Amino acid sequence: MIQTLEWTEHGIRFLDQTKLPTEEAYVTATTAEQVADAIRTMVIRGAPAIGVAAAMGIALAARYSKAESAADLKRELDRTSDLLSKTRPTAVNLFWAIQRMKDKFERVRIRPIGQIKQDLAEEAQRMHAEDIAANQAMGHHGATLLPSSGGVLTHCNAGALATAGYGTALGVIRAAVEQGKKIHVYADETRPFLQGSRLTAWELMKDGIPATVISDSMAGAMMRQGKIGAVVVGADRVAANGDVANKIGTYSVAVLAKEHGIPFYVAAPISTVDLACPNGSKIPIEQRDVKEVSHIAGRQMVPDGVSIENPAFDVTPAKYVTAIITERGIARAPYEESLSALAGKTEVGA
Amino acid sequence: MIQTLEWTEHGIRFLDQTKLPTEEAYVTATTAEQVADAIRTMVIRGAPAIGVAAAMGIALAARYSKAESAADLKRELDRTSDLLSKTRPTAVNLFWAIQRMKDKFERVRIRPIGQIKQDLAEEAQRMHAEDIAANQAMGHHGATLLPSSGGVLTHCNAGALATAGYGTALGVIRAAVEQGKKIHVYADETRPFLQGSRLTAWELMKDGIPATVISDSMAGAMMRQGKIGAVVVGADRVAANGDVANKIGTYSVAVLAKEHGIPFYVAAPISTVDLACPNGSKIPIEQRDVKEVSHIAGRQMVPDGVSIENPAFDVTPAKYVTAIITERGIARAPYEESLSALAGKTEVGA
Repeated sequence: MIQTLEWTEHGIRFLDQTKLPTEEAYVTATTAEQVADAIRTMVIRGAPAIGVAAAMGIALAARYSKAESAADLKRELDRTSDLLSKTRPTAVNLFWAIQRMKDKFERVRIRPIGQIKQDLAEEAQRMHAEDIAANQAMGHHGATLLPSSGGVLTHCNAGALATAGYGTALGVIRAAVEQGKKIHVYADETRPFLQGSRLTAWELMKDGIPATVISDSMAGAMMRQGKIGAVVVGADRVAANGDVANKIGTYSVAVLAKEHGIPFYVAAPISTVDLACPNGSKIPIEQRDVKEVSHIAGRQMVPDGVSIENPAFDVTPAKYVTAIITERGIARAPYEESLSALAGKTEVGA
Repeated sequence: MIQTLEWTEHGIRFLDQTKLPTEEAYVTATTAEQVADAIRTMVIRGAPAIGVAAAMGIALAARYSKAESAADLKRELDRTSDLLSKTRPTAVNLFWAIQRMKDKFERVRIRPIGQIKQDLAEEAQRMHAEDIAANQAMGHHGATLLPSSGGVLTHCNAGALATAGYGTALGVIRAAVEQGKKIHVYADETRPFLQGSRLTAWELMKDGIPATVISDSMAGAMMRQGKIGAVVVGADRVAANGDVANKIGTYSVAVLAKEHGIPFYVAAPISTVDLACPNGSKIPIEQRDVKEVSHIAGRQMVPDGVSIENPAFDVTPAKYVTAIITERGIARAPYEESLSALAGKTEVGA
């Protein structure tokens, strides 16, 4: 299994995703600042992976803290949390993970400093393990929805590289393939950051799952030619009403799927569901550097003096979403009810 | 006005579109082989420009021919026509232009060889001038369809660079701006060849028409945000029933436009209408080198061992097309009737 990120005795070891697919380079962050920087520059990306990385970043800050009291340690960790929370605004897993580490701290703050540090490190590692387990459960639930053979389209990378391992959308595909389904994945290249061509294609190739890369602009033509039997994507935030924020271009894919009568599935852990957010219009959408659009591999593609937009995400209204696959089961419309029911569940299971 | 290609005493001088937007480099082809190569490698591209370039290529072959009889010249020109006709299969203007040069030859073959050569050169230049006039007429007809202000989305480049000058879709936008309409153009970057970011943005910037470049994947989000009031694109071939072959991704834009209730216009000269082709399923779709998808600016973006699709065009069924703007007037559904009526017209006018 691909080791996207792991807690080691030296720090947090992770795959530099900006170097894929031609170079498999691992780096080790020894400070929370390095973790924040890796999230900001998308060396680590994908909502669940960002959450786990942030938790590990807080555990790392605790490990190297010279604080002699819980109050001093808390002040340091609050600064670290603040730094991490400002890296990227859309993926709610980031804030969920930071809050979980804060809650953990409060539960153990009466213990000796050394024990608090160890408790935080264990909590971060637990979140890592839980994320993989959640993805496997999502795979189990979602695999039944996919056709027994044929093309499944995905956008961006919601795979092992976007999570602690196994993946959300690609986890569903992996589970379907493990069940013997003959899936051929169509991967949108996903401009501007090319997560589809660089990352999804790479991890599917590693697993021997057949895949075809297409430009984002080809998805409609592939659907019209009957090559796509289902769409499955991940999510950065799911609002209480089922509106889904995910990588820019997801909305276009959802509209195309509807036009062709193709089911459109979202796979996301419960930590991505933000019940405090009533609908998609309340989800903050990150605007990234326009150079991601204007320059590719260092070459200028847009002339100077022309404006550029670069929203990193879009919102797909719930009405386009056939089902949301979580580790606790499958939610269907009306999502206000189904999502809050799943969020209230404590045990993993269908 | 941008000189996309022109007949000179040295040969055919044209702008190398693969070097834009950072370099404005002109080259002069002195043989039909060089013209064929320029079309194949998309140094010259855009259906109307390809047609004019092919006509000029035939005139060029005639100019340098050593044939001493009309029969010998015809054999040479047939070989040249064959070479040129194999460069790209989808844009019907190529075949239309070659046929028109053949017809011209037949009409003048009884003249002295020197006169035939001159007649062919004049015919190619006439086609160049007619293309610009057709685009201006299209602009005149189409400008009234565009909103008086706001965003107009276009895909690929159907501008001066795709024609002898002025442009088809961008001609309509230019005419609207000349009429005082406050248009802001949203240009899809148009992967894989980036005609939107490299070419459309460049020529609009040259003309001082405000433009914003977006990834193809952002078009849906821009429409949903209410930023787009109309879509106007060019065409490589229009079937008798109004189905439109155009740059890959056009179909997705058309579906998105329909979903948002946004009018979707196609601007194309009558030479792009192929009445012999009953519907879009009969239009040959060019498959280009997958390296256009896998490699950008020389950098590998797709891992080895993963398959790639690279259709250069898609077909937008007539039901998504609000109107087709030609130099002879505007066609609306049912297109079988409106297109054949316009094709039968001999005079340019509304």
